[in-house]
Amino acid sequence: MSDKLILTLALVGGTGKLGPGLAMRWAQAGYRVIIGSRQAEKAQGIADELNEKLGIESIQGMENRAAVQNADIAVLTVKQNAHQATVESLKDVLSGKVVVDTTARVDFRDPKPPAAPSAPREAQKMIGPEARVVAAFQTVPAHRLQEDIEQPLDLDVLVCADDDDAADEVIKLVEGAGLNGFYAGDLDNALVVEGLTALLIAMNKHYETKKASIRIAGVG
Amino acid sequence: MSDKLILTLALVGGTGKLGPGLAMRWAQAGYRVIIGSRQAEKAQGIADELNEKLGIESIQGMENRAAVQNADIAVLTVKQNAHQATVESLKDVLSGKVVVDTTARVDFRDPKPPAAPSAPREAQKMIGPEARVVAAFQTVPAHRLQEDIEQPLDLDVLVCADDDDAADEVIKLVEGAGLNGFYAGDLDNALVVEGLTALLIAMNKHYETKKASIRIAGVG
Repeated sequence: MSDKLILTLALVGGTGKLGPGLAMRWAQAGYRVIIGSRQAEKAQGIADELNEKLGIESIQGMENRAAVQNADIAVLTVKQNAHQATVESLKDVLSGKVVVDTTARVDFRDPKPPAAPSAPREAQKMIGPEARVVAAFQTVPAHRLQEDIEQPLDLDVLVCADDDDAADEVIKLVEGAGLNGFYAGDLDNALVVEGLTALLIAMNKHYETKKASIRIAGVG
Repeated sequence: MSDKLILTLALVGGTGKLGPGLAMRWAQAGYRVIIGSRQAEKAQGIADELNEKLGIESIQGMENRAAVQNADIAVLTVKQNAHQATVESLKDVLSGKVVVDTTARVDFRDPKPPAAPSAPREAQKMIGPEARVVAAFQTVPAHRLQEDIEQPLDLDVLVCADDDDAADEVIKLVEGAGLNGFYAGDLDNALVVEGLTALLIAMNKHYETKKASIRIAGVG
């Protein structure tokens, strides 16, 4: 793999819960990683912290727009209530790219299945047909991504996309982060994956754990 | 367990895809089982077949209404397009019982996540508050239930109910059939489980298998 193209990944809203764990895992897997935030200084601060943790210098921090402009693939890790405004404000720079949407519109305190359309379907419509939106990572507990980051995680990620090639690219990213990726249909199906987070929250409460997760069996 | 109350289970629409496998597994686990159908003779015919397969005589066949009237727990295994009419026509006899709803409103040829409310939520509203509706078995491939019926199946069943005691009763039924049952929240969450069947169909097509299934990890 010495001649593989090194991709640059921008984590839009990467200073939040999901971003740092993914950033560290991808940086360790050899990807170029940019943490994005509405404030460049905040992004740089988190990038510095992560670099220090890993003993590297390669993770960069930038304002979200610059992060996307400098990346091959944009990964939306913003809070669910910022999803729509973020996509709207960046749609011109997201256009033409693979856009990974991690959004699950489920409230931890009052978990319910969200209504259609799925968040990534909405993003696809807002950005337009030149982007290839791919849903992934919605059911991944953020805290687990930051545990033992040199170890693979026994977590399965459902990957939904209208474009098969884009889905395959994102399945590689999932594997690069040490998780298992499975193609699970088009962007409409991402609504079900968003809703799965409500079920996992219900299971965690009922079984008094924080570790409920979904696995896929019987394929591959 | 010699003094345990032997429950009688009615499989409404039990001559279809899901009913025979469940009936055989429950009969072997010691439950009394009644196959229900719109036509008593058809129900009796399937009951006779299943008894012959198992070398027993205990599975009965009755018209759906009589089956429910003679049962402690009713299990709806009708085709998705018959769900509403069946519940409507039986709601007076379903009232007061635990009603297990296996319905997943997903078309195999054009699989999409269904719209809210979930089928079991709709059933609960139609039957009224005296019934305790529990969603289960939506993601179970019917053909697998009929394989090696003396063996447990490596399949996990998500159980959704508003009533915790009813959920526990149905988790016992799931285990009686040789599968693993997990509480996954209230009847609204059953919409997600219905939708999961669309994802499993997409996975089966993509990975060219018939064995895609969901497993639960990290609880219990």
